[in-house]
Amino acid sequence: MQSIEQYRQEFEAYLSEKIRTKDPANLYDPMVYIMGLGGKRVRPVLVLMAAEIFGTDSKKALDAALAVEVFHNFSLVHDDIMDDAPLRRGKKTVHELWDVNTGILSGDVMLIYAYQLFENYTGETFRKLAELFSKTAIEVCEGQQYDIDFETREDVTIAEYLKMIEYKTAVLVGAALKMGAIVAGASEENRNSIYEFGRLLGIAFQLQDDYLDAFGDPKSFGKRVGGDIIENKKTFLYLTSLKSAAANEAVQLEHLYSINPPDATAKVETVKSLFESSGAADLTKDEIRKYTEEAFAVLDRMEIEPEKKELLRKFGENLMNREV
Amino acid sequence: MQSIEQYRQEFEAYLSEKIRTKDPANLYDPMVYIMGLGGKRVRPVLVLMAAEIFGTDSKKALDAALAVEVFHNFSLVHDDIMDDAPLRRGKKTVHELWDVNTGILSGDVMLIYAYQLFENYTGETFRKLAELFSKTAIEVCEGQQYDIDFETREDVTIAEYLKMIEYKTAVLVGAALKMGAIVAGASEENRNSIYEFGRLLGIAFQLQDDYLDAFGDPKSFGKRVGGDIIENKKTFLYLTSLKSAAANEAVQLEHLYSINPPDATAKVETVKSLFESSGAADLTKDEIRKYTEEAFAVLDRMEIEPEKKELLRKFGENLMNREV
Repeated sequence: MQSIEQYRQEFEAYLSEKIRTKDPANLYDPMVYIMGLGGKRVRPVLVLMAAEIFGTDSKKALDAALAVEVFHNFSLVHDDIMDDAPLRRGKKTVHELWDVNTGILSGDVMLIYAYQLFENYTGETFRKLAELFSKTAIEVCEGQQYDIDFETREDVTIAEYLKMIEYKTAVLVGAALKMGAIVAGASEENRNSIYEFGRLLGIAFQLQDDYLDAFGDPKSFGKRVGGDIIENKKTFLYLTSLKSAAANEAVQLEHLYSINPPDATAKVETVKSLFESSGAADLTKDEIRKYTEEAFAVLDRMEIEPEKKELLRKFGENLMNREV
Repeated sequence: MQSIEQYRQEFEAYLSEKIRTKDPANLYDPMVYIMGLGGKRVRPVLVLMAAEIFGTDSKKALDAALAVEVFHNFSLVHDDIMDDAPLRRGKKTVHELWDVNTGILSGDVMLIYAYQLFENYTGETFRKLAELFSKTAIEVCEGQQYDIDFETREDVTIAEYLKMIEYKTAVLVGAALKMGAIVAGASEENRNSIYEFGRLLGIAFQLQDDYLDAFGDPKSFGKRVGGDIIENKKTFLYLTSLKSAAANEAVQLEHLYSINPPDATAKVETVKSLFESSGAADLTKDEIRKYTEEAFAVLDRMEIEPEKKELLRKFGENLMNREV
């Protein structure tokens, strides 16, 4: 087994070799650009790691890993258009550097290319990868749609919110691990367990992202702290606050989520104190712990060698070990 | 064998049964809307027809036919955003009726759904359909990119133009026929021949579309006659004129393609007379005839029963029998 950093390097080398521009350049240059912006490569690393956990050389999982990363970047390109985002990983987004039309069409070709990468697998492996990919990709689109819908809905439930983050973020983490397992020919039980491990960890991760957006250390949290509050985003913290707060605090919170002051400092501070006084901050930490523990419980029950479990556990701990 | 109209009705019934909205409605309503706008359903009819030609009940090809039509409509939704088109088949486009973001995301889910429809086929059929679909879909995107690139390029060659229309339009016609052949388990030779028949006929059809845009009967031609000229679109007629015209006429043509008069009547008439005096109108007719005859020659060489050849020939003649 390799370390996470070694998997990442193995993947980066493969990406540099495979993701090259070609004619028509205006279609493929944006793919090379966005794929070259880097990032932690969490999803492809999970594909490679899962393949080795189930006894196959990670090399054999490189095309599946690339498919997952190409898909993830396709969704970033299209989501950035929808969010009108100027920057991605500190660099200009595709639709900013080129234009919206280029972003749409380059994104489309990336989605199709992701499917093509599965053609490097024979027999049932091809089919299983493509089926899992389609199911997951549709869920990711549905998650994005729910996220958009929630912006203008005042009656979003916590259950709906959890389903949204599951679809938008967590299923692709589960699918990445399961793809590695499929390439390795793991048993159906193991394939499903590792998917479940990834899905639960993905939900925990996203909830933690919500939490850190309000309470994270500005130095270590990658994004602007308070960003969700400034954008009036109905996160788990907000929805839980509304539900748990006293009536007058809930009214205050709803009011604060209806305004967009030019200087948001006071708003952010007041909202954060309401998140705490309502008990939502602690409830969110409980929920993160619950999903993380559930993920590790699934891992415990899996019938794989202890040192492989340890690798997955370490990955999970690394992922969750941010400033909570 | 059924008639073309019977295949169309069979397909429409299946479409109504399968294309239903579901949650999240904002994601799936646009799919139901665009798929319900009708049209001749040329591509799915070809899938069904080819399946029966190679000895399989057209029912078995319905999912492949639906995949092709879903993909075609995905490309319409995204192309209409890129072209900023207000209308499609006389009704509002998806991005007009909803918004651009909805058009992007609904289009994405349609593309993925098209792949999912192939899951209703077993074994190698699934793989062959998915592979052909990916190859074709990538070509369609590349064709669209070339079309966009050509708008701002002054050195487009006739060979480049032919490749663009082949990718943007013709390969999907060939792929539709080949998918029916794949579902029916036709020999590789027959699969490739029927693809070639469709590809050549598709190029002929698109060249005829260029021709009719200038010289068609306004009553029978579906679109506004002269539209390509008004938009300064570098069609086969234009590129051939530039190449064949006397130097002074070529200069005049280039000038006319650099202006956008509010009343385009005189411009359209002058350009049309240049298309004729340069010989480009006749050369375009020759080219349409050449591709049509090549398509029928491929058909002649195919080893299928005469009455099945006749059906394909009739389809081809119907397709090409507009006011040339």
